[in-house]
Amino acid sequence: MYENEKKSERIDDLLSHNLRIIQSDEVFSFSMDAVLLARFAGIPLQRGKILDLCTGNGVVPILLTTRTKASIEGIEIQPRLADMARRSVSLNGLEDAIEIREGDLRELVQITGHGAYDAITVNPPYMPLNGSDIKLNPHQAIARHEVNCTLEEVIQACSRLVRNGGKVSMVHRPQRLAEIISLMRSYSLEPKRIRFVHPRIHMEANMVLIEAMRDGKPEVRLLPPLIVYQEDGNYTQEIREIYGEVSKEDSV
Amino acid sequence: MYENEKKSERIDDLLSHNLRIIQSDEVFSFSMDAVLLARFAGIPLQRGKILDLCTGNGVVPILLTTRTKASIEGIEIQPRLADMARRSVSLNGLEDAIEIREGDLRELVQITGHGAYDAITVNPPYMPLNGSDIKLNPHQAIARHEVNCTLEEVIQACSRLVRNGGKVSMVHRPQRLAEIISLMRSYSLEPKRIRFVHPRIHMEANMVLIEAMRDGKPEVRLLPPLIVYQEDGNYTQEIREIYGEVSKEDSV
Repeated sequence: MYENEKKSERIDDLLSHNLRIIQSDEVFSFSMDAVLLARFAGIPLQRGKILDLCTGNGVVPILLTTRTKASIEGIEIQPRLADMARRSVSLNGLEDAIEIREGDLRELVQITGHGAYDAITVNPPYMPLNGSDIKLNPHQAIARHEVNCTLEEVIQACSRLVRNGGKVSMVHRPQRLAEIISLMRSYSLEPKRIRFVHPRIHMEANMVLIEAMRDGKPEVRLLPPLIVYQEDGNYTQEIREIYGEVSKEDSV
Repeated sequence: MYENEKKSERIDDLLSHNLRIIQSDEVFSFSMDAVLLARFAGIPLQRGKILDLCTGNGVVPILLTTRTKASIEGIEIQPRLADMARRSVSLNGLEDAIEIREGDLRELVQITGHGAYDAITVNPPYMPLNGSDIKLNPHQAIARHEVNCTLEEVIQACSRLVRNGGKVSMVHRPQRLAEIISLMRSYSLEPKRIRFVHPRIHMEANMVLIEAMRDGKPEVRLLPPLIVYQEDGNYTQEIREIYGEVSKEDSV
């Protein structure tokens, strides 16, 4: 199956850890968002269970293996993408570290039970389903628009799946910050650490990284801005470090 | 009255507009927070009514006169401070532009009615009333701690006092961002424009400026970070511009 679609695939290098990933512009290619999420997320480093929702081609789980020895699961609703993710896991010999589930994140709690994970990461579809500008193919539409799950459903699933005191880390668009924060709080996920990503220092943020704690007390740390490009158009030192060498312990 | 307390007062220059303000370290002195709020706030420029809650010594109304011809009211619960504010207004000959009310912001709507203002600014007490660290005198305690009004009461008052489509601008501590955003949304104030202030570019934010619209639709603009100090310890160009010359139209 998928043999025709596989023609669009390529194998890309993933940072400098000798990791590789199967991508396809027609189906799913990872972006900087996923890389920054994998670096930002508060996760257990030695043991425990981590879950990546909306895992796509598995980029976040694969990157997380450079920071943790915990077991990692990814869940993806699109069979085509779950298959790509599994093949990328095999390509890197990470079958013992990562399990890819094909399924609906809204139904996962029925299998795992409540509070089954120590940490959750999620890079959800950014766009509400308003019907206006969907000229994408179905794969792209599902990855980018809230076709299969709304922001509220994603946050509700996180709240059910993470244990008390466990962390949920999300990357999203700052435009939706207010909705994200009020939804998280209404599902007992208290925002604790937020970082905004600005393309340049004098530009508005185009990405937000947000970490919440299940049943945490209200107190936010607002991290230094993460600037992507220097004035001269080259990546900043921090972005070069993130792309060039992700140390095992640090999170941004 | 207050003659003994007046001994602690001094008259300070307020930026470069030949404005002056009566201050007292024992009672109330304005901080950069108020200056940045007065510059950030979305306000009508030609006509209309602006209200400043928790106005203290009147610093925000006085600074706003450099940006707008609208009428400005300030409300302050402490008689001592309301008196200082009125004298500062007179000192600058701004009696026609600014009216200082002495009173409780929670009761103001009973006098003005709902939706009486086009824009509201507020620099509320930052600290919850937890009883632990209040070694301040009563003036300082009321200005810094939620003695006379909670964050929720401030936001509720804003929601009642501003007209539909009107703007509420607040300066606060980023630690309380999640509470602020969820409270605002629960009182029909939709956060629209947020800016974080970082002492230095590599440090966490210690101040947040947030503008909400009564009954606005959910969509946040996350402005470029406002950095206070350069690496060499001097103020950044932007802070020097704000302190040195506030143009009449621009907001940060």
